[in-house]
Amino acid sequence: MMRTAEDLARSIGAELEGDGARPVRGLAGPEQAQADDLIYCEGERQRARAEASRAGTALVPPGLALPGKTLLRVTEPKLAFARAAAFLLEPAPAAQGIHPSAVIAPSARLGPGVSVGPFAVIEEEVEIGGGSEIGAHCFLGRGTRLGESCRLYPRVTIYAGTRLARGVVVHSGAVIGSDGFGYVRGPDRQWKFPQIGRLEIGEDVEIGANSAIDRGSLGVTLLGADVKIDNLVQIAHNVEIGEHVVIAAQTGISGSSIVGRDAMIGGQVGIGDHCTIEPGAVCGGQAGILTGKTIQSGWVVWGTPARPLEQFKKQYSWFARLPELARRVKRLEGRLGVEDKPSD
Amino acid sequence: MMRTAEDLARSIGAELEGDGARPVRGLAGPEQAQADDLIYCEGERQRARAEASRAGTALVPPGLALPGKTLLRVTEPKLAFARAAAFLLEPAPAAQGIHPSAVIAPSARLGPGVSVGPFAVIEEEVEIGGGSEIGAHCFLGRGTRLGESCRLYPRVTIYAGTRLARGVVVHSGAVIGSDGFGYVRGPDRQWKFPQIGRLEIGEDVEIGANSAIDRGSLGVTLLGADVKIDNLVQIAHNVEIGEHVVIAAQTGISGSSIVGRDAMIGGQVGIGDHCTIEPGAVCGGQAGILTGKTIQSGWVVWGTPARPLEQFKKQYSWFARLPELARRVKRLEGRLGVEDKPSD
Amino acid sequence: MMRTAEDLARSIGAELEGDGARPVRGLAGPEQAQADDLIYCEGERQRARAEASRAGTALVPPGLALPGKTLLRVTEPKLAFARAAAFLLEPAPAAQGIHPSAVIAPSARLGPGVSVGPFAVIEEEVEIGGGSEIGAHCFLGRGTRLGESCRLYPRVTIYAGTRLARGVVVHSGAVIGSDGFGYVRGPDRQWKFPQIGRLEIGEDVEIGANSAIDRGSLGVTLLGADVKIDNLVQIAHNVEIGEHVVIAAQTGISGSSIVGRDAMIGGQVGIGDHCTIEPGAVCGGQAGILTGKTIQSGWVVWGTPARPLEQFKKQYSWFARLPELARRVKRLEGRLGVEDKPSD
Repeated sequence: MMRTAEDLARSIGAELEGDGARPVRGLAGPEQAQADDLIYCEGERQRARAEASRAGTALVPPGLALPGKTLLRVTEPKLAFARAAAFLLEPAPAAQGIHPSAVIAPSARLGPGVSVGPFAVIEEEVEIGGGSEIGAHCFLGRGTRLGESCRLYPRVTIYAGTRLARGVVVHSGAVIGSDGFGYVRGPDRQWKFPQIGRLEIGEDVEIGANSAIDRGSLGVTLLGADVKIDNLVQIAHNVEIGEHVVIAAQTGISGSSIVGRDAMIGGQVGIGDHCTIEPGAVCGGQAGILTGKTIQSGWVVWGTPARPLEQFKKQYSWFARLPELARRVKRLEGRLGVEDKPSD
Repeated sequence: MMRTAEDLARSIGAELEGDGARPVRGLAGPEQAQADDLIYCEGERQRARAEASRAGTALVPPGLALPGKTLLRVTEPKLAFARAAAFLLEPAPAAQGIHPSAVIAPSARLGPGVSVGPFAVIEEEVEIGGGSEIGAHCFLGRGTRLGESCRLYPRVTIYAGTRLARGVVVHSGAVIGSDGFGYVRGPDRQWKFPQIGRLEIGEDVEIGANSAIDRGSLGVTLLGADVKIDNLVQIAHNVEIGEHVVIAAQTGISGSSIVGRDAMIGGQVGIGDHCTIEPGAVCGGQAGILTGKTIQSGWVVWGTPARPLEQFKKQYSWFARLPELARRVKRLEGRLGVEDKPSD
Repeated sequence: MMRTAEDLARSIGAELEGDGARPVRGLAGPEQAQADDLIYCEGERQRARAEASRAGTALVPPGLALPGKTLLRVTEPKLAFARAAAFLLEPAPAAQGIHPSAVIAPSARLGPGVSVGPFAVIEEEVEIGGGSEIGAHCFLGRGTRLGESCRLYPRVTIYAGTRLARGVVVHSGAVIGSDGFGYVRGPDRQWKFPQIGRLEIGEDVEIGANSAIDRGSLGVTLLGADVKIDNLVQIAHNVEIGEHVVIAAQTGISGSSIVGRDAMIGGQVGIGDHCTIEPGAVCGGQAGILTGKTIQSGWVVWGTPARPLEQFKKQYSWFARLPELARRVKRLEGRLGVEDKPSD
């Protein structure tokens, strides 16, 4: 469907300047853009690249001019660009129609417009909301329930009984609702602690490639609405993650930890079990939060064990100067005629 | 099958107090339990939750009373709970019967009662022990051998020639027996070092979702009996892991390292190549063990480079006080009239 | 096909000493080798093992003798061993012929000798170069292009539009060309930044099991020729990796970072976004490179934040002696009659 700059301005609430009839077919970076692409420019620093672009239409902040282009003026051009993407782009379907090779149990219920790719397996009592797309090679275990408009890329496994609300997107290779990791050591072997709880995933959650999200052991693992999870992330049993939380790649969250809404977790972070990340807290990449610790709202933490960034910086700056500090101590000892060998 | 509290007491060797005829159908946490569920209570701290539970039957330690419930008295209630789970729960089968869509090579030999899910691929000369379950989308490469009662969840890949003893459980997405990572740099390109060894996995090993276990390069990668591996774990070529070892999520073990029996490895630990983790040693989360190092039996290590926890704590407590220490040195310099700038 | 020591010597450019007619069928470690296997010996340290081996043929450096064996004398025995593997070993095919169960779109074009395993899905407009092998359960999204002689092990997902040059090898579970991770926070939800760029992979790249390589957001993610990537590695959107780079397991590289040719990246390394790893730099295992930082050519870096190894060693040696340093400061304070409590 053909959209114009004016259509787009109306859709995202931008102020239009210039030719509103200009067609806008796609989005691109300034260097790759064609005449009918949309670009965005956040300020003076990016202005030269935007000006040199062939793009006919640009999202710009107040006060910024780009001669010859149709301008869509907004307060947050990058946010508007993402919203424009949702308006302009039709994501390629993860599946089209119901492929005849798919194995769908008789008791499974598929809503209107559900599509299922080749070799997908849908077990008994699964329910899939209307418009959802199930990619090739997906496996939906018994009793799984998906809301409307979910999208599973090819090769996603969902263990039995897992629930996904509407609009959940799961990328290829992710394993959803797998057993948590818990054993009790007996005298001669380990006994598996029951992993019979559930996993519930809120609306509009997106889960990256090859991530693994475990079900509850006895209770429930919960991901709130609008949670965004990158690739290769591990979420253990009984974890609760609040709305809008963002978790970057290769982070692991251990059992029964709670991550409050709007928290931001960097890549390769390790969160021990029974931790609390309070709402809005930020954990820097590779941070390690020890078992049972709390990261307070308003904190940005860093390092292992994680501590507030300002504190870390002070400590670290002296770590880097330790050889110097040691020399200074030695000099003082020389002045006082004290031997520098350890006092114990 | 209907079980009573008395059946259960007999099975796990508990002392029965109260109504032995009470039916016990499942296990639950205190808050979720129904009348015919079993709960466990480890001591006074959990007593209020247990007392308030609707559960009719409870595992309790010596001396603890829960009025109105049938009590199964044991010395280790949590261990008994895990053992009760093995008695009470029939895990949902990973596959039922031999699905007609599965591609099974003529020379593959399947023991009695083996089940194979949809779209599984079983190559030539594979041998599968009786009662094993092969989930949908699994791939068993040529010559793979599985013992009895193995369970592969959907979408497990096993490279050619890998051997699994009886009772091995592998979760979805795991890749078992893949090529190790080894190249030799030539003048203009890298040449792959041969990765033609084997992988052997002992009895009752469990491997988590999306983990990767490499085959030996020339030799063998070995996982001993009762090893438990969490999600997203990496085990490199020629690694040997002793019995009962537990490895938490996202840990990586580099080539030719040896992990002794009963060792416990936390999450996100990195073990360099040619390391030795002696039997029973404990590596804390995110620890880094440098190439060739030994972690001794009895040690609990922490940090990178990993060192005994007590040592780390002392060092770290001074790290956190470095700004203070630096101020104290500066004050001493002031007293002695020494300049505080670096001495070199 | 039967090869002799003389065939092998000619193929890899070695100097033959002894019986050139001796058959060489395989490669092995000294302890596992049979009479018709090739072993290698890098020097005196390995000589006893080599001498005791049943192997009939050995790669040896100048000046080393192994009585009774046919010797292939070379300057770099391990490199020659890897080259010999390429000459002697015929890797087992990832697929044979076109399996009738594969779903191949009518517009897909397969070169001569392409093989496709059971349940593979090849979408519209895919192009596959001659001699490539597509394993069981692979998924090739619309418009994907593979060069000649690629090998996809079973269960590889390639998102639409990805390009692989000739000779690329991808191991099981890898996800290639998935969406990058980018959202822009709006007042009440997060909007996905478009992830509509491409992924291009150069010749002879090898990618390990369960790794994830994202496509560009607007631009392109690039892997140069001869890049070797281990298991469970994460490469984010718009990353550029130069030729011959080696990346060990569980490392993550964040968006828009550049890794120069010949760099070596250890395991569990975290590279922030917009970093530059200059050509030939080495990042030690678990190193953390902060957003926007540059690691210079010639550096070997270590730790988080990453710094040159020599610098780290000096700092770290004092970290380990911090309790001692603190005692020495306290002793000095005692001498001078200064209280040791913090000065602020």
